[in-house]
Amino acid sequence: GLTIPAYAEMPKIKWRLASSFPKSLDTIYGGAEMLAHRIMELTAGQFEIRVFAGGEIVPPFGVLDAVQQNTVECGHTASYYYYGKNKALALETTCPFGLNTRQLTAWVFEGGGLEQLRKLFADYQIVNFPGGSTGAQMGGWFRSEIKSLSSLNGLKIRIPGFGAEIFSRLGAVPQSLPGGEIYPALERGAIDAAEWTVPYDDAKLGFHKVAKYYYYPGWWEPGTHLVFYVNKTQWDALPPIYQAVFETAAKETHLLMLATYDVKNPTALQQLVRDGAVLRRFPDDVLLKAYATAQQVYAEESAHNPAFKAIYESIQAFQQIADPWWGIAESSMANFMRAMQRQQNKTAP
Amino acid sequence: GLTIPAYAEMPKIKWRLASSFPKSLDTIYGGAEMLAHRIMELTAGQFEIRVFAGGEIVPPFGVLDAVQQNTVECGHTASYYYYGKNKALALETTCPFGLNTRQLTAWVFEGGGLEQLRKLFADYQIVNFPGGSTGAQMGGWFRSEIKSLSSLNGLKIRIPGFGAEIFSRLGAVPQSLPGGEIYPALERGAIDAAEWTVPYDDAKLGFHKVAKYYYYPGWWEPGTHLVFYVNKTQWDALPPIYQAVFETAAKETHLLMLATYDVKNPTALQQLVRDGAVLRRFPDDVLLKAYATAQQVYAEESAHNPAFKAIYESIQAFQQIADPWWGIAESSMANFMRAMQRQQNKTAP
Repeated sequence: GLTIPAYAEMPKIKWRLASSFPKSLDTIYGGAEMLAHRIMELTAGQFEIRVFAGGEIVPPFGVLDAVQQNTVECGHTASYYYYGKNKALALETTCPFGLNTRQLTAWVFEGGGLEQLRKLFADYQIVNFPGGSTGAQMGGWFRSEIKSLSSLNGLKIRIPGFGAEIFSRLGAVPQSLPGGEIYPALERGAIDAAEWTVPYDDAKLGFHKVAKYYYYPGWWEPGTHLVFYVNKTQWDALPPIYQAVFETAAKETHLLMLATYDVKNPTALQQLVRDGAVLRRFPDDVLLKAYATAQQVYAEESAHNPAFKAIYESIQAFQQIADPWWGIAESSMANFMRAMQRQQNKTAP
Repeated sequence: GLTIPAYAEMPKIKWRLASSFPKSLDTIYGGAEMLAHRIMELTAGQFEIRVFAGGEIVPPFGVLDAVQQNTVECGHTASYYYYGKNKALALETTCPFGLNTRQLTAWVFEGGGLEQLRKLFADYQIVNFPGGSTGAQMGGWFRSEIKSLSSLNGLKIRIPGFGAEIFSRLGAVPQSLPGGEIYPALERGAIDAAEWTVPYDDAKLGFHKVAKYYYYPGWWEPGTHLVFYVNKTQWDALPPIYQAVFETAAKETHLLMLATYDVKNPTALQQLVRDGAVLRRFPDDVLLKAYATAQQVYAEESAHNPAFKAIYESIQAFQQIADPWWGIAESSMANFMRAMQRQQNKTAP
């Protein structure tokens, strides 16, 4: 007959997971807790992962290094935090005017994306797993209205990564600030604007009280993915059944984090508007110039970074056919529904 | 120490799963195979589910009855097939002008939807699990153009469920036909139009050769969910660890089926257009009248069906806040990207 492994015969494994996120970002931080809980449940407690919030055992932006060096077995982070190491890493998270979150999920799991990303992460001794999503983010908080491209001249905006690079070329002065320092900087006018994430998380930091214009679309993060990192040596040493458990549980987190945000963000947006946030769409000239600039940035990076070039081309090839389909199937419906709602409720955001 | 159950001590369980779908609908049918494979893997072969295609052991539309009667332990189907039993069941799948697929997933898992649906399915001795999605569907194939509402007068269209009810009130003559009979009926002009699913599946049946106008949006299926049914008695008898395995594996299928369609549909749409399909948006007067009629249908059903009323009101309440958020975060970005692509490629669909 079959040889059936018994749980009791399977190794007892204890891992530490370093999250980049504070517990106050409960939906994102909670993704790692959800993973750990499910893995315990599916292995009758034999495979135990203890989750540490950002800074507890590893600095928030030290997760890649810590997993690479096997200081911790695994982590939960966002790959664009490591933009400074290789801009190709940021493509795992999102990129300006790139795929939306459903498209990025499709490209990763079924469009050859995961294979390409795994090759990149092998350089860091890491095996990567999509680990949740926020959906499209907002364009952030501005103390004054952005009436046209010229409003960006000299604008001090807190924004990291590709977004910062593009804003800089548009005349703004990007700033790097941790989450906790944004509010006081906006309040005293040390910065003019700041992007953070989505209404549910933005509301907690109270930005609307000090910078009331809330802009959209968040063109630099059209569908942000979080990620689980596992040290390659640790991964290879796992029994195959534990590998399957980890992989399946990670997919559950990927699905449910977005579902959670999709439930929380609509209410949070409504409340922010009630509390004084003023919604504004970026003017067309800003969007057009940002779009053109993004293409330049990608071309320049592709010219000297083969890993970036290969992954970006794969994303682009998919986007060229995925966006028309999205427009026909999803947006044609969404735009009609939005028009119906505007007719019925003129005060809706 | 802890008492650790061993796989060998866990019961060997063999279930049969009756799918409503033929193997030719490989993405949907494959969802059940994916579930069964993952469950085997996670239980070291102790929990085995054998998948049968539609009609092999249970008629395609007999899955609910078969699971309710414990003829099979579980099934994979679409709840709107059982519209005739209780229209509330259809709300588990999708409804005209209802939530898109990401919103429906959010409502089910994190917005209280699953609890409400479980109460409904308890009447059928069934425990339900979301089991994949197609995304927004197309509006189907038409032999002649729909120029305005009056084009629908007497139009013989193959369409089931709520869509049929609304088309009927708009002057059309809905027909009920199994998938295999649609093509010959369109070819000989016995029907004027037919809706099926999405480009990837529609292409396989070759409808574009006999009814070239391909309409969107598919307003009666803005985000179609498939579902796994498990007989309640069988579910309650499962060891908790097997319940957790089933639930987690079902979420993986839910995530990956949509990812698969999102990769396959864009290419299929492009190929259909190359092969002669002509894309058309439903005229505004059709959409407006269909929307108003849908609201009437829901009001009438709610007046005498408390289960429908409760679930529909919950969906509606969520949609009232979820659609504005979608418009701001997702559609503002998608519409801009679509405009950029149209500038660059005037021949794109």
